[in-house]
Amino acid sequence: MNFSYSRTIRFADTDGAGVVYFAQIFSICHEAYEASLASQGINLRDFFGGSPGNAAIAVPIVHAEASFRQPMFCGDRIIITLQPQQLSPDSYTISYEIYSDLGQENPKPNLESNPKSNPQSDPKFPPRSQQLIAQAQTKHICINPQLRSRQELPDYLHQWLHNN
Amino acid sequence: MNFSYSRTIRFADTDGAGVVYFAQIFSICHEAYEASLASQGINLRDFFGGSPGNAAIAVPIVHAEASFRQPMFCGDRIIITLQPQQLSPDSYTISYEIYSDLGQENPKPNLESNPKSNPQSDPKFPPRSQQLIAQAQTKHICINPQLRSRQELPDYLHQWLHNN
Amino acid sequence: MNFSYSRTIRFADTDGAGVVYFAQIFSICHEAYEASLASQGINLRDFFGGSPGNAAIAVPIVHAEASFRQPMFCGDRIIITLQPQQLSPDSYTISYEIYSDLGQENPKPNLESNPKSNPQSDPKFPPRSQQLIAQAQTKHICINPQLRSRQELPDYLHQWLHNN
Amino acid sequence: MNFSYSRTIRFADTDGAGVVYFAQIFSICHEAYEASLASQGINLRDFFGGSPGNAAIAVPIVHAEASFRQPMFCGDRIIITLQPQQLSPDSYTISYEIYSDLGQENPKPNLESNPKSNPQSDPKFPPRSQQLIAQAQTKHICINPQLRSRQELPDYLHQWLHNN
Repeated sequence: MNFSYSRTIRFADTDGAGVVYFAQIFSICHEAYEASLASQGINLRDFFGGSPGNAAIAVPIVHAEASFRQPMFCGDRIIITLQPQQLSPDSYTISYEIYSDLGQENPKPNLESNPKSNPQSDPKFPPRSQQLIAQAQTKHICINPQLRSRQELPDYLHQWLHNN
Repeated sequence: MNFSYSRTIRFADTDGAGVVYFAQIFSICHEAYEASLASQGINLRDFFGGSPGNAAIAVPIVHAEASFRQPMFCGDRIIITLQPQQLSPDSYTISYEIYSDLGQENPKPNLESNPKSNPQSDPKFPPRSQQLIAQAQTKHICINPQLRSRQELPDYLHQWLHNN
Repeated sequence: MNFSYSRTIRFADTDGAGVVYFAQIFSICHEAYEASLASQGINLRDFFGGSPGNAAIAVPIVHAEASFRQPMFCGDRIIITLQPQQLSPDSYTISYEIYSDLGQENPKPNLESNPKSNPQSDPKFPPRSQQLIAQAQTKHICINPQLRSRQELPDYLHQWLHNN
Repeated sequence: MNFSYSRTIRFADTDGAGVVYFAQIFSICHEAYEASLASQGINLRDFFGGSPGNAAIAVPIVHAEASFRQPMFCGDRIIITLQPQQLSPDSYTISYEIYSDLGQENPKPNLESNPKSNPQSDPKFPPRSQQLIAQAQTKHICINPQLRSRQELPDYLHQWLHNN
């Protein structure tokens, strides 16, 4: 069962063409990644904020790509599903799918997130109402941030990969 | 009772000093403004996306300011309260207060928003656990986007001002 | 001879890990694309700001990808080279290469851009001093923004493709 | 003579209303601040990227404000002038003025910056052609990043204040 993350498109996400700026989709996917890590108890400040001087590991993105099918507008409700997969002892990819959240006819701006709701199974989000808007993928390699040499994924990331 | 909006600090909000980039606080406050408008049934795509050719009104920001008391880190939970006030027939200000959300000891990344929860009164957010992190204010003037001349606030904005 | 665009990494480009936020590389490449269009006399406000109501064409990005080799830090000077290629009567790709600008030992923050300087041939930027930091690609499809149907590239984009 | 920094408005700066997103003006002013520091030989990576573990000082922004007079569009050329002023042994403010750069009738996208050109005196930018678009101010306090206690400005910042 994939992790899913709900979000409202904000004015700051849009560009002068009136739709979400293309590069912003990567930030939106990264938010889903952060929410997924946090849902497993991983401390985001330690995990991401690790300065070179004091972090044990870093897992920088070495490749990112996205395909866009439909434009997104300010106020749109979207659902991002996320599927990580281990590639090697020191790397993983994450696949993202972004769906429109048409199930909510009325604006419910305060319901920012639906934890672990599976769009395929959750009765609140019938498949009929959703449309695939975009797909994305990121590839991450675990390194020692001081030496910038590759190192194996720590146990808590194995755990996170296993649980997703 | 003020409108309040909850949010998690995201990696994209941070800068090379490891804390939220100062300009980002204005986007975060604007998100709260958007959520407040949407909570009153105002369509955000129409309200904000109005291109000069087809929008009846626009309410651009003519002044913005913020004071910062504490740094914010990736993964931090914050609550933004918002208090709009009409200034004249064609303008209003919005005052924002950003609090740390220390009431939630455990990471609950999926609870993105607590609609209309008043930090002062909601038992889930006892006042003791909160700290004022930042304050901000924006001033908005209602104009005709074609002529860029001032015009009176429409009824639905009077309604929104009245309800907040 | 490829178009090239120089830029300094700004604090706003960086994230809590102290390096350029991965999604920001797409914005940086898009800046180079904008500079390339403008260098051929294309009006950027008309080209990009076209609201659905009044634009003749739009050329949205339908795919974007990037690979990252080296981190970039605040104050770093980079050079982006750009190579567009027509794919079909209504589409093109743009390939980007991002190099460190090590040729400039001393900070010269005011020299924001080196128009049309070819990193391979310009004596100011000897090949030895440059390192490939990242590569990216975007795919663009020309549409009628009202109907969202595909349409052929206009002459001025053929011209731009031809000149690059 | 004030430091001045030229810049082109980029698509990523704009929002769904087709103009520069209000919070973006603060990033644009910060770019000018960075360029000003670098013009005096201050290393931006050390100055801004200082992680709590290894930086001697940090000078975070404690207040920021901006007033907006005119909208800015993608492709517009602007000039930012900057005037810092010491407030106390451990603090300073910076005042920014953003002008349209109407002196350049033809798009010259590659001329990203005009170092130290004073808009009031430079014959290339006659006063008649410029319009004040926005004004901003930031207030900075020098601290020890480990202890977060105030400390006096270092000599190189006194030097920078003196030279501007």
